[in-house]
Amino acid sequence: MTQTTFSDVKGFKVAGVHAGLKADGALDMALIYSEAPCSAAGVFTTNLVKAAPVLVDQATLAANDHHIRAVIVNTRCANAATGQQGIDNARQMQRWTAERLGIGEDEVLVMSTGVIGTQLPMDKIQHGIALAVDGLGSDWDAAARGIMTTDTRPKLASMRKSANGYAVTGIAKGAGMIAPNMATMLGVITTDAAVQPDVLADKARLMANLTFNRISVDGDMSTNDTLLILANGQSGSQHEAGYFSNPLYNVCLNLAKAIVRDGEGATKFITINVRGTPTPEAAKQIAQTIATSPLVKTAFYGGDANWGRIMAAAGRAGIPFDVNQAELWICSGEETSAAPIETTNDWEAPYIKVPADALQLFGGGMPLAYDETAAGAIMQSRSITVTLKCGEPNMVSETVWTCDLSHDYVSVNGHYRS
Amino acid sequence: MTQTTFSDVKGFKVAGVHAGLKADGALDMALIYSEAPCSAAGVFTTNLVKAAPVLVDQATLAANDHHIRAVIVNTRCANAATGQQGIDNARQMQRWTAERLGIGEDEVLVMSTGVIGTQLPMDKIQHGIALAVDGLGSDWDAAARGIMTTDTRPKLASMRKSANGYAVTGIAKGAGMIAPNMATMLGVITTDAAVQPDVLADKARLMANLTFNRISVDGDMSTNDTLLILANGQSGSQHEAGYFSNPLYNVCLNLAKAIVRDGEGATKFITINVRGTPTPEAAKQIAQTIATSPLVKTAFYGGDANWGRIMAAAGRAGIPFDVNQAELWICSGEETSAAPIETTNDWEAPYIKVPADALQLFGGGMPLAYDETAAGAIMQSRSITVTLKCGEPNMVSETVWTCDLSHDYVSVNGHYRS
Repeated sequence: MTQTTFSDVKGFKVAGVHAGLKADGALDMALIYSEAPCSAAGVFTTNLVKAAPVLVDQATLAANDHHIRAVIVNTRCANAATGQQGIDNARQMQRWTAERLGIGEDEVLVMSTGVIGTQLPMDKIQHGIALAVDGLGSDWDAAARGIMTTDTRPKLASMRKSANGYAVTGIAKGAGMIAPNMATMLGVITTDAAVQPDVLADKARLMANLTFNRISVDGDMSTNDTLLILANGQSGSQHEAGYFSNPLYNVCLNLAKAIVRDGEGATKFITINVRGTPTPEAAKQIAQTIATSPLVKTAFYGGDANWGRIMAAAGRAGIPFDVNQAELWICSGEETSAAPIETTNDWEAPYIKVPADALQLFGGGMPLAYDETAAGAIMQSRSITVTLKCGEPNMVSETVWTCDLSHDYVSVNGHYRS
Repeated sequence: MTQTTFSDVKGFKVAGVHAGLKADGALDMALIYSEAPCSAAGVFTTNLVKAAPVLVDQATLAANDHHIRAVIVNTRCANAATGQQGIDNARQMQRWTAERLGIGEDEVLVMSTGVIGTQLPMDKIQHGIALAVDGLGSDWDAAARGIMTTDTRPKLASMRKSANGYAVTGIAKGAGMIAPNMATMLGVITTDAAVQPDVLADKARLMANLTFNRISVDGDMSTNDTLLILANGQSGSQHEAGYFSNPLYNVCLNLAKAIVRDGEGATKFITINVRGTPTPEAAKQIAQTIATSPLVKTAFYGGDANWGRIMAAAGRAGIPFDVNQAELWICSGEETSAAPIETTNDWEAPYIKVPADALQLFGGGMPLAYDETAAGAIMQSRSITVTLKCGEPNMVSETVWTCDLSHDYVSVNGHYRS
């Protein structure tokens, strides 16, 4: 498995353009196009308030998940809470894109991100679609930039299984409103592997659960969250199963982690491992409660080893565990501590070991006499791993990723619409 | 019902002292003492990680809820996650207080607040108990100051039913880690009404549900949250039932709202009303999801009428409702919009009317053509009321109170221990 350039996914062309949605002239629309029809699958927000493009894509995929050719994306306006006019506008985006590309309307998927509750400026959207179709090429960086909102940098990842195997390339945007369920606001993953639509639908759900559903920035969930995976089969290779060596998994994981690293105002990347609960769901619930606690997140921002807040968050997660059997460890970095043990089951979550250099803060129901200087040094790291062992002698272990809560998060979100 | 001075609760004496726990010389311990034995009831944190004083008080009340005489409180150290030594220290606080007052150990309740995971400095605690017993008097303001942590002002409230009736006086502390379940970190309510212990236990649970359990600052839940109510009967009056005219309810409500107003970094007081769900629990769940959304709270801080975030939070609350039937209204203030209609059932939650001067932002699944200037003016208010009607034609209505999320919240919590 090697990092590849972003033109390596055969048969896909992309564009990122400035349609005039962003006042500062930045790229604000993107188009992903496949020369051959794709199997396609989507995972969508579970928010009751679903944006128009989510509803349109769900309907399009239900009718045609084996012959998708393009995804058109706009920023600045989420086209959410916009009623029938919003639906009509999303359909118009489909139609214009199809006409320009000379393909069917039902071969186009639509994504929008930005402010909720305003209608799309359709003249600019039409202009952007024309620019994007004319500009189709191999500039994945521009495509990634074309879907950014409060992101400070584009998010793209690409992997190849072997020299002659298939490739996977994806782009994503995140930044805020990133919650444990469908955390990516938008993600488009392309591959030139051949995958049947029903297999791809299963893989999309699995990938969302293993990566994007394990990250949080602020615990809010968007009306627009969408992950789309398109497979056009142009490499001549079949998608293979496998876990840590799987390009699809690694592209999704890299994009998910990139969203956390670029979370609104984020200064630190936090890995939270929870082990030894009766079930994986219980471990994930505790990990996510810690990951979304404002008190925990501000303590990380301040570099304060205030581990009592971590235990307090764990304690209110609604999962019973024996506090007197619990152990809490911290260390710097993310890879060392999260080094997974490959399991026999291809898709089982990895079992997390506590790394040798980790510092134990709490055990036996009591604070330990740890070195405050060492704890402080860890808390000052750019990347910190927390491991909570809940005491059950089993192999249950779950990981989530989050960032700290900083002054800049408040600044970015206090005046987002202006 | 009139506001009374704080010496009006017959038979209670209080003190707030500096025991040396706070480095800046501020008051850091408090004592509440009754000359006559009290009926007593407590409502405690549901956090799995319970502080030692919570465990000790639960045991004490289980054995003796009809003969309590005193409550001793310290700040700076929560005595939580402190193991057996923490329990022993909490018991020692009881013992020292009882000895100094010449009463039984099982007549004393204990409260602690502050950093989790450090042991109490027992020499200072012993010193503070001696000072507090020697200083007993009528200075409720000092007692309220003696329990403050990051609070910027003391919280006390007092009410009397009628000129010759019983009085209720309470103190509370809050500021951070204020969540929908047992939101007050600490509250002590005293009354000279006569109330049987079993009746008082019911009332304590009811009052917590109607007031302290309806507020949030950051959605975190403390290991130490405790509400204690002591009734010594010295007025010669029985506690009366009743709702809006009830002194106990009003003292708890005033203290709960004071905690929100003084939430860490809070600049705005937000009332959130949700109506027209199938059940009250559903309305409360939606209201609390809105109230704890970082995106909603930062928008309030910025004075931005970004109502899409309110709808997005409502949509992820896990409660089904018809978005096309929903209506969202905002207005300035808290009293006008929340003017309750008294119901025939004394303790039923009030039904909230949308006030005449409210501005509707959303309806029929679509944004409305409201006046942005008017909306902006409301969002700039110090006190803002949001009303979400979910469309069911019934009398269900629930209210919660919260504050905005500001830069100062991050500052206060980034370096709390230092």
